Amino acid sequence: MLYAVTMDVSLPPDMDPEVRTDLMTREKTYAQGIQRGGEWPQLWRIVGRTSNLSIFDVESHERLHEILAGLPLYPYLTIEVRPLATHPSKAPDVP
Amino acid sequence: MLYAVTMDVSLPPDMDPEVRTDLMTREKTYAQGIQRGGEWPQLWRIVGRTSNLSIFDVESHERLHEILAGLPLYPYLTIEVRPLATHPSKAPDVP
Amino acid sequence: MLYAVTMDVSLPPDMDPEVRTDLMTREKTYAQGIQRGGEWPQLWRIVGRTSNLSIFDVESHERLHEILAGLPLYPYLTIEVRPLATHPSKAPDVP
Amino acid sequence: MLYAVTMDVSLPPDMDPEVRTDLMTREKTYAQGIQRGGEWPQLWRIVGRTSNLSIFDVESHERLHEILAGLPLYPYLTIEVRPLATHPSKAPDVP
Amino acid sequence: MLYAVTMDVSLPPDMDPEVRTDLMTREKTYAQGIQRGGEWPQLWRIVGRTSNLSIFDVESHERLHEILAGLPLYPYLTIEVRPLATHPSKAPDVP
Amino acid sequence: MLYAVTMDVSLPPDMDPEVRTDLMTREKTYAQGIQRGGEWPQLWRIVGRTSNLSIFDVESHERLHEILAGLPLYPYLTIEVRPLATHPSKAPDVP
Amino acid sequence: MLYAVTMDVSLPPDMDPEVRTDLMTREKTYAQGIQRGGEWPQLWRIVGRTSNLSIFDVESHERLHEILAGLPLYPYLTIEVRPLATHPSKAPDVP
Amino acid sequence: MLYAVTMDVSLPPDMDPEVRTDLMTREKTYAQGIQRGGEWPQLWRIVGRTSNLSIFDVESHERLHEILAGLPLYPYLTIEVRPLATHPSKAPDVP
Amino acid sequence: MLYAVTMDVSLPPDMDPEVRTDLMTREKTYAQGIQRGGEWPQLWRIVGRTSNLSIFDVESHERLHEILAGLPLYPYLTIEVRPLATHPSKAPDVP
Amino acid sequence: MLYAVTMDVSLPPDMDPEVRTDLMTREKTYAQGIQRGGEWPQLWRIVGRTSNLSIFDVESHERLHEILAGLPLYPYLTIEVRPLATHPSKAPDVP
Repeated sequence: MLYAVTMDVSLPPDMDPEVRTDLMTREKTYAQGIQRGGEWPQLWRIVGRTSNLSIFDVESHERLHEILAGLPLYPYLTIEVRPLATHPSKAPDVP
Repeated sequence: MLYAVTMDVSLPPDMDPEVRTDLMTREKTYAQGIQRGGEWPQLWRIVGRTSNLSIFDVESHERLHEILAGLPLYPYLTIEVRPLATHPSKAPDVP
Repeated sequence: MLYAVTMDVSLPPDMDPEVRTDLMTREKTYAQGIQRGGEWPQLWRIVGRTSNLSIFDVESHERLHEILAGLPLYPYLTIEVRPLATHPSKAPDVP
Repeated sequence: MLYAVTMDVSLPPDMDPEVRTDLMTREKTYAQGIQRGGEWPQLWRIVGRTSNLSIFDVESHERLHEILAGLPLYPYLTIEVRPLATHPSKAPDVP
Repeated sequence: MLYAVTMDVSLPPDMDPEVRTDLMTREKTYAQGIQRGGEWPQLWRIVGRTSNLSIFDVESHERLHEILAGLPLYPYLTIEVRPLATHPSKAPDVP
Repeated sequence: MLYAVTMDVSLPPDMDPEVRTDLMTREKTYAQGIQRGGEWPQLWRIVGRTSNLSIFDVESHERLHEILAGLPLYPYLTIEVRPLATHPSKAPDVP
Repeated sequence: MLYAVTMDVSLPPDMDPEVRTDLMTREKTYAQGIQRGGEWPQLWRIVGRTSNLSIFDVESHERLHEILAGLPLYPYLTIEVRPLATHPSKAPDVP
Repeated sequence: MLYAVTMDVSLPPDMDPEVRTDLMTREKTYAQGIQRGGEWPQLWRIVGRTSNLSIFDVESHERLHEILAGLPLYPYLTIEVRPLATHPSKAPDVP
Repeated sequence: MLYAVTMDVSLPPDMDPEVRTDLMTREKTYAQGIQRGGEWPQLWRIVGRTSNLSIFDVESHERLHEILAGLPLYPYLTIEVRPLATHPSKAPDVP
Repeated sequence: MLYAVTMDVSLPPDMDPEVRTDLMTREKTYAQGIQRGGEWPQLWRIVGRTSNLSIFDVESHERLHEILAGLPLYPYLTIEVRPLATHPSKAPDVP
């Protein structure tokens, strides 16, 4: 089941650089693990913002919340979730 | 180059049913043509809304505007465009 | 799977009374059918507004959109959908 | 009498972990006590957010405010309260 | 039980003057009936707007919705309802 | 002359408890003094929020600003002021 | 007593030109009468908008509402009213 | 050339009282200097808010920005600037 | 003097095609006349919207309002005006 | 390819003056380098705000994000990006 998710990151500008680096490294490792498992098929940077647009493909709401709440950056995120369905104008022969 | 585009459709509820059917048919044909050409790789319905979330992959801003302004539903649409870039946490080995 | 859904109804004040009555009758019949099928377990009026707050319990996003788009009032509705999950403070022994 | 209540939690990310754990423990205990007393029949997590959607069933506005203001997390909450009434399309034979 | 209610009136400027006069007359009669019954103790015009601020004192949410939905102007109103409780700084000896 | 005033209080959650208690005590004393003088005839808690809805009855804008700016909590308040007038549907025989 | 008032005019683009001309003529006559009486000392066009910023100097809220509700354009206006007081940084020797 | 300018002041409540007093004193001196020079003909307090509404009369955008950026309170201000022009309903014989 | 101006066009979808064509032709002629006079040096389409971003270079607020109010599309436009000044980071040797 | 970009700067008012001066110096050097390279052809101050309006002319979304994320002030900026295209009313003979 598909969800469009946007995440806006808001880190305090005066965060300790080491803490910040560690946090970003853990975030990347975690995010790539979920991507490799197939549940986070799309991830883009929104140009000019510390935000992303993501597509998640998971089996349930519970699983989506578990993934999002597990993000190392979670305390610094504002997240919006929109469930997606098939669009009637989608070309059936385009993968 | 990638763009996230949301389109909200606002048709007058009292639109003539034939006009409406004709409009929706032309919209679908047009949209599927662009999809088959590879410039509109993703198209989803946002659940509960007469809205979609789309990913466009075009060579220029000019081309994106040309495609959007050519939509038969264009006079009834509110469109938001956000340019997308590569995200640093994107797993390079996930297609 | 649970979703919180709010629907705001916006009918033109000058709608023909017969058309309106017919529409409201069909809406009620449709809504009660879905409720009896178990997919719309909660439905409340928000006081002072032509709006409702609903809880849906359906198997997929696709099914939720199918139900909502099938509402006779659908062309007059503004709908917001929020996926729900288990809350960690939920008392496990309260049904 | 029924109220729909949403609570958005905003804890400072640099809160002392022990203080935080203690606060969350007390919140859970308090919330489950009210739930067991029957005044907080529904509590859900809104997916991707540190927010909940709740249904309260209390005898008066005064009692609702007393419960909410007593939440250990109260200083960190943004709360919205909407009174609920019976909806005319509610199926009378669905509990 | 007390509620603060704001009502914003939005009448089409081209409404037939007779229809409008009839509507306003019925509104006034209805509103004064509820006031005389004691359930609508305060009603003020918000300066410069076709809006009012009202205090209602009714026994239940159901009754408040019944009163509001019965207003002849109801199809033209945007209504906001806020439940009120005793304020801790209220002087107990001021009526 | 009547004004509807809403005040939203935003105290830092980590405020020293003694400072806070002192501030709240002074606020209460000040507020009750103004109430007893007849210039602050109505004061309600908005349920679930650290906000109030107040009616002030003062001789001038200058006097209203003097009262509000004198509130011990003033640096922590967001205040909205709306002038009130007689409503044409007000029942003249209801006090 | 001073009030800052903004008025946004929203006339239907398809209004009959004669009706429109008549309305604008009556508006101008009415507005200039109030200005000459000294109650509307300042009136400016906000550049690029069919809006104005005005300063009114009247004896009461009741009088301000009477003036505003009497504007021939009143059914087409969105009005915002803000009471003004003396500013502590105002130079006392500047008229 | 005329501009309507609103300034909202947001000082941290825990600012050192001496620093605050010094800042407010310098602000007042600066503001009165500009007023006496004729470029800041109107300055009002918006009732209940740490905000003002001002009219500036300066020769250019550059000069307006120079004045505003020179305010001692500038780092604590949110400023909105709206260019003003002659209103067609302005009575030519009212100064 | 420079101004950034955005214009959002909102034409009724059911406008008579001939009226619409005539309006757009007159708009284009008028706009190009102002551009050739040097007062409208920049004009861009905002991608996906019936909106533009423009830079105007005129001698006064009065002149800007005269140009904008003279646009054939003016009754259908929502316009935002922001005065511009020199930026301190502007490279002086870049034209 | 052209983009309209607005940047709102939000520096903490209590930032160390030396840190601030150093940051602003590096920002200016960086910004002027990009301008001299031809990718940032327009940069204006929005009057009364610590904001700018910029036009960027770059080869791709990726390059725009690289430039913006490289700004020394980036952690303190809120940035909005709007892709621009040719406007049909643009006079072809005006450079």
